[in-house]
Amino acid sequence: MHTNRIETLAANLRGRNICAAAVLPSAGLFYLTGMATYLSERPLLFVFTAAGGVLAVCPAFEAERVRRDSGVHNLFTYTDEESAGAGFERLARHIGEINLLAMEFQAARVLEYKLLENSCGVKQLTDLRPILSLQRMRKEPAEINKLQQAAQMADAAMAVVEQNLALGITEVQIAEAAENFVKARGGRMSFVSIIAGERTALPHASTSTRPLRAGDAVVADLGCLVDGYTSDITRTFLLGDASAELLQIGAVVFEANRLAREAVGVDVEAGHIDAVARSCISLAGYGEFFTHRTGHGLGLEVHEEPYIVGGSLEKLQVGHTFTIEPGIYLPGIGGVRIEDDVCVTATGALSLTTYPRAVKVVKLLCSTD
Amino acid sequence: MHTNRIETLAANLRGRNICAAAVLPSAGLFYLTGMATYLSERPLLFVFTAAGGVLAVCPAFEAERVRRDSGVHNLFTYTDEESAGAGFERLARHIGEINLLAMEFQAARVLEYKLLENSCGVKQLTDLRPILSLQRMRKEPAEINKLQQAAQMADAAMAVVEQNLALGITEVQIAEAAENFVKARGGRMSFVSIIAGERTALPHASTSTRPLRAGDAVVADLGCLVDGYTSDITRTFLLGDASAELLQIGAVVFEANRLAREAVGVDVEAGHIDAVARSCISLAGYGEFFTHRTGHGLGLEVHEEPYIVGGSLEKLQVGHTFTIEPGIYLPGIGGVRIEDDVCVTATGALSLTTYPRAVKVVKLLCSTD
Repeated sequence: MHTNRIETLAANLRGRNICAAAVLPSAGLFYLTGMATYLSERPLLFVFTAAGGVLAVCPAFEAERVRRDSGVHNLFTYTDEESAGAGFERLARHIGEINLLAMEFQAARVLEYKLLENSCGVKQLTDLRPILSLQRMRKEPAEINKLQQAAQMADAAMAVVEQNLALGITEVQIAEAAENFVKARGGRMSFVSIIAGERTALPHASTSTRPLRAGDAVVADLGCLVDGYTSDITRTFLLGDASAELLQIGAVVFEANRLAREAVGVDVEAGHIDAVARSCISLAGYGEFFTHRTGHGLGLEVHEEPYIVGGSLEKLQVGHTFTIEPGIYLPGIGGVRIEDDVCVTATGALSLTTYPRAVKVVKLLCSTD
Repeated sequence: MHTNRIETLAANLRGRNICAAAVLPSAGLFYLTGMATYLSERPLLFVFTAAGGVLAVCPAFEAERVRRDSGVHNLFTYTDEESAGAGFERLARHIGEINLLAMEFQAARVLEYKLLENSCGVKQLTDLRPILSLQRMRKEPAEINKLQQAAQMADAAMAVVEQNLALGITEVQIAEAAENFVKARGGRMSFVSIIAGERTALPHASTSTRPLRAGDAVVADLGCLVDGYTSDITRTFLLGDASAELLQIGAVVFEANRLAREAVGVDVEAGHIDAVARSCISLAGYGEFFTHRTGHGLGLEVHEEPYIVGGSLEKLQVGHTFTIEPGIYLPGIGGVRIEDDVCVTATGALSLTTYPRAVKVVKLLCSTD
């Protein structure tokens, strides 16, 4: 249980006249209690009251684990025979009506919302996400330390990707080589790695069993997890005879990445960072092929606040950590993306990922060499 | 896109005066469209109308993937700059107001529900889960075939677990051996394997780096995934000098598993199967230590309908597939669970998992032997 974080949340709830926040298994729950668990068909829900109390509804057979992993002892349990409603009724008898409730809209299920509505007579629901992300965005030094370790692991995994590039090797084999490397060092991947040759015109292309071929632009996008904190890096490699156009967009994306990182600073608006990357790509004539935002926050989730997106007025602060990942995707030709993880410091941006960024032309070897 | 399944759903909606069902990335979505995707902070939502139409709201840069993977072409997109609300407004202009909407309470997020409420003026929300699970529970022959393949893979992985049991080897190492075996055969695990020695008094104990010791009751619970369909098997091994009490509960659980499987038949109530297993364990004096339901449905999800739980009046039908997994957990001593996957046939139950069920006393070898 992170007492300081829970106290800050309670103060934030009081300041908004919110009675309580209900939190399901999620990054937010881990942030507040240290409990890493998963959603199942059996509801497990923590209630953080404006007065600073913490209670939970959980399946009876999970009570011991919940106590041990979260440090919360005020539990309202239900058995499989009773179904979850019984646990929520017990909670309601203890805390009474909840007038204004906060839940994270993007992490909360309708299931638990309806159970709370029925048991605690919730009158109004507000989104907890903007409140909690205010806290979560400003990383503490210990959190930055873990993010840096995760980034270093990703740098090392990217080196494994580059070493494995060869004619005939499949995308999946390269992803596995990187994953095995990370695993052997006690880490794990934070999302399914993308190693995409042919179809890189899709930003979220998935890794296939297609063997690499000369002329491919291989977009490699991977991340590692250290103590719950994630990294996220993308590099692009051109195999063998790279076309002039791929070389050209590689240079443009490299420049957009550099300019955006250099634009980061305290009180700079997130939307400005997006505009810097976007205008660099637009000026080169590829604006319509940069089809996503410039970046996303990084922490306990691979995508979290602050989002580096056009129009965002979010002012960056020391400790904010996010990606800078401009890309250009030319249908039928291929794509290039260069992604780094940066942390805002008093003097600018510290890039946690440091693997060489330039799009590299890789000489071709057969995978059996 | 599974046209037959979508037509059946539409008929079920019409029969209940429901205007439309909204489905997020989930097993339900895979069941209906064949699209396997994940929840992200960017809403992706499919709407199945009572008239049989299918539409979707999705991020603009994902449109190509959504079309390709789901076969749905009627898309309402939004860009990162606009935010998701814009896509939902476009959907609303096309389909108008939704009076009575169905969403799966346990798979739907408050985020998308609120977006639909605001854009389409939803008046009433009902749970899609019981409607869709009526369809999903009765497995088609092709689905049973995949479940059987997944079960055979789990049987083989359990053999790897048994072969690896030795003094000093850690729980994690055994789990990895099973996982590598499955991976080498093109499969993957459907959930994080549980290999638990000391703390088996917790039914959902997690796998640790603790080395196995003489006297441990090792509960091994794992499952494999084949084309989206899952298996789930548990066996228990006693290492070296097994205590008389562990041998005793092993025999009781074995009998409870056998009796419950034999009780399965068409039109038998799920609650009856639970009662059969529970009374066997209670008669032996261990009733209070069987702390969970007897089983859960199995298919595209590791836990789904029908639940084999006390009081359930759900009548089993041909094609229903679920686990039978009685267990006894003695605090400070250890636990035993024996879990099989069974499919209801016209004449009883076919056990898809077949690995020897009896709790086996394993002779002790050092892991370096």
